[in-house]
Amino acid sequence: MKNKTLLSLLIGASAMLSSQSQAVTDDQKVILDLLQSNAKQDSLSYDVIESLTTEVGARYAGTPAADKSVQWAQDKMKALGFDKVWVEESKVPQWTRGDLTAAISGPYPHKVVALALGGSVGTNGKELKAEVVEFASLEALQAAKSGSLDGKIAYVGYRMERHKDGHGYGDAVGARVAGASIAAEKGAVAFLLRSVGTDTNRFAHTGMMRYSDGIKKIPAVAISNPDADLLENMLKREQPVTFSLTTSASGPTGKTATIANVIGDVTGSEKPNEVVTIGAHLDSWDVGTGAIDDGIGVGITLAAGHYIAELPQRPARTVRVILFAAEEIGLWGAKDYVEQHKGDMDQHVIGAEWDFGNGAIYELTPGVGAEALSEVRSFAEYLAPFGVGMSDKNDAKGQSDMSALGEAGQPAINFSPDGSDYFDYHHTENDTLDKVDADALKINTGIFTAFAYWAATSETNFRK
Amino acid sequence: MKNKTLLSLLIGASAMLSSQSQAVTDDQKVILDLLQSNAKQDSLSYDVIESLTTEVGARYAGTPAADKSVQWAQDKMKALGFDKVWVEESKVPQWTRGDLTAAISGPYPHKVVALALGGSVGTNGKELKAEVVEFASLEALQAAKSGSLDGKIAYVGYRMERHKDGHGYGDAVGARVAGASIAAEKGAVAFLLRSVGTDTNRFAHTGMMRYSDGIKKIPAVAISNPDADLLENMLKREQPVTFSLTTSASGPTGKTATIANVIGDVTGSEKPNEVVTIGAHLDSWDVGTGAIDDGIGVGITLAAGHYIAELPQRPARTVRVILFAAEEIGLWGAKDYVEQHKGDMDQHVIGAEWDFGNGAIYELTPGVGAEALSEVRSFAEYLAPFGVGMSDKNDAKGQSDMSALGEAGQPAINFSPDGSDYFDYHHTENDTLDKVDADALKINTGIFTAFAYWAATSETNFRK
Repeated sequence: MKNKTLLSLLIGASAMLSSQSQAVTDDQKVILDLLQSNAKQDSLSYDVIESLTTEVGARYAGTPAADKSVQWAQDKMKALGFDKVWVEESKVPQWTRGDLTAAISGPYPHKVVALALGGSVGTNGKELKAEVVEFASLEALQAAKSGSLDGKIAYVGYRMERHKDGHGYGDAVGARVAGASIAAEKGAVAFLLRSVGTDTNRFAHTGMMRYSDGIKKIPAVAISNPDADLLENMLKREQPVTFSLTTSASGPTGKTATIANVIGDVTGSEKPNEVVTIGAHLDSWDVGTGAIDDGIGVGITLAAGHYIAELPQRPARTVRVILFAAEEIGLWGAKDYVEQHKGDMDQHVIGAEWDFGNGAIYELTPGVGAEALSEVRSFAEYLAPFGVGMSDKNDAKGQSDMSALGEAGQPAINFSPDGSDYFDYHHTENDTLDKVDADALKINTGIFTAFAYWAATSETNFRK
Repeated sequence: MKNKTLLSLLIGASAMLSSQSQAVTDDQKVILDLLQSNAKQDSLSYDVIESLTTEVGARYAGTPAADKSVQWAQDKMKALGFDKVWVEESKVPQWTRGDLTAAISGPYPHKVVALALGGSVGTNGKELKAEVVEFASLEALQAAKSGSLDGKIAYVGYRMERHKDGHGYGDAVGARVAGASIAAEKGAVAFLLRSVGTDTNRFAHTGMMRYSDGIKKIPAVAISNPDADLLENMLKREQPVTFSLTTSASGPTGKTATIANVIGDVTGSEKPNEVVTIGAHLDSWDVGTGAIDDGIGVGITLAAGHYIAELPQRPARTVRVILFAAEEIGLWGAKDYVEQHKGDMDQHVIGAEWDFGNGAIYELTPGVGAEALSEVRSFAEYLAPFGVGMSDKNDAKGQSDMSALGEAGQPAINFSPDGSDYFDYHHTENDTLDKVDADALKINTGIFTAFAYWAATSETNFRK
């Protein structure tokens, strides 16, 4: 923190003013600007990501590496000046990836780059070999006749589209989640998917799948997009294409593993029980080092908490950083947080998550009571010179983990960074530190810090 | 081929004119333009690459897949109307990659994406674990004291620079080729290298290395650039970093394998013994499908031969497409071609290779007799509107395989495509069909076809 004396004076001035108006005052702006300026002159959020990805790396929920990340996060929060740091533990179903080899076995043999989808059963380590039947989409697979895939491998080749707001993911992910059981219903012995990703690199994109009750569990595997192209080019030749798959993925084992949310408070000076939450998820997939997903969120939220903790005067409300556990496998940590905080959820005044990469923020969307909209608008106007617009909608429930808190009544601001390239790296081996643009990160850290400070100094009740 | 009648008339007219002048005549220009126009309206070169990468795929010298590519190439040449198609066999030393696992084992364990360098010995399938010592460059490694690396793993972290002409490769590749023996001289038990590549994807770049005589052979392994970053970040923490390596790479086995150049002639109408050569290499590394390296060259040269074969009248000289074997492991096929063609090398009037990706050609460099320069200049002037300049130098010996023919006296034209992104994919798993820009390929095919036609209709002696 720079200019502590000046800042101290300004905070005093703004504290007087802020209670008189819902608008962001000129004095508040100066403090918000200073917080942003500090973030822009500092590499803290990047250093946090570097530390997490280097000293922990991949940290799949329920593994020893995830346990290590929980210790890492507590140590980091303490070092960064959080007042109170603790963990809240719960349990998740256990799954293990095991090994996998995949190949087109005929008519033209090729090795295939593939990853089991999260939750998938394996082949018990035995080779499964069958003819591939191609479908353009989940809908096309659904339309196949029962029994028409007996003994075959179903392949869905839907191509995810690249969009700024990432909505191509929603269009594509249904096949990843539900495809295996739909294929099994038609008689298929395995399910292959063109990766849900926008890149053309030879990485498969993993991610969760789920089995429907009462349907035979068959292996579910994503293949890299270049391998999907190859498979489709081969299928165009109108000869039977056979595929070979060997995987020791465990499927649901029935066992559970311990997970832990790591929580750090920068305690409010006047209303410590009123909590502004900023969140990210600490867990990652097991294949990259989770720099983008969600090391960036960890870096931004920890830095935001630190910058506010360093202020000579705490905001009135508490700023709480929640590093959620087991987001990737189904928001387990977030749901557990809601369960454990039933009694004080009404004290959660507003929350925001950072879990969508590092693009420039172009919009914020509130999910607040009608009376609070004018204050949000005032904050959005303050952010306008930084390229952030305000959505006409007021339906935000919180992104990713925060959606669970939103469902439980916590008001939310959704920040929308440009996610055009987010799904180039998402859930791949290629999610590594070099993908984090240090300059863009400083700007995003500054804006997110400003949000937390603004909400924690606000007098407004954001509830609907 | 379109407009056959018109073309036939024009060829008649130009044949009369071309013997009267060293300059590219207006009539020749019309034919050259038509050949280029046909290439631009056609997808032949792309289709050839698609066929090679789909029906054969990776084709490392001396493997069954390489044998398959030899059959594929003969079939393709015959189907494309070459008059004479044959193979010339020879032998290469055998090497097998085997399996590899690599990891940073301490202080913070991480899996590492790595590939054995071509020719490397393995660890006999046993784990080799040792402390890593970092060097910024080959020169820094060379400066290390004898014995200073006893029992250690040497790591060279030199970062290849991105340049249009690819000269960053020359600056970086020395460490790949010679690093292991230099490290072994100082006592190292293994050699690690930051990948010789310009990308930041999590792929290791393989490529040949060589052992010096009388020095202990130690395993030589390239790690992906993101993994190199991670290793360096860990080394910055000033704690000992240990690395674990298990590989069953064979090293030089002493056995040999058969390779074959595949050669196709479009026989000249007047001087069939005078041969214009256009070349590419048929072999690839074993990790991608060799679309860029050198499927593009295979596609362009076969298409060029086909377009010229389809003309109603053959050029005076023979156009010969040579698909060289075993380029990747040391120009073995090219050297064998020179050996087998000692008797008629003086009939090789000029040659050009395509083996540097698919960028826009910005320059040609001749390597011809002084008297022939004016005709080359005239051809370069014809190409100027397509963005191709002519180098002031006259020292080209031929690129890649063609350099062996150049050393044996064959005049050459070197075409320089923009290679800025070539080393993003070079020698990786990620060298796949999707990286081939179909539109850029049409333009390059047109220009290369024009070269072959121009040289084969020329009356000039290009020899020095």
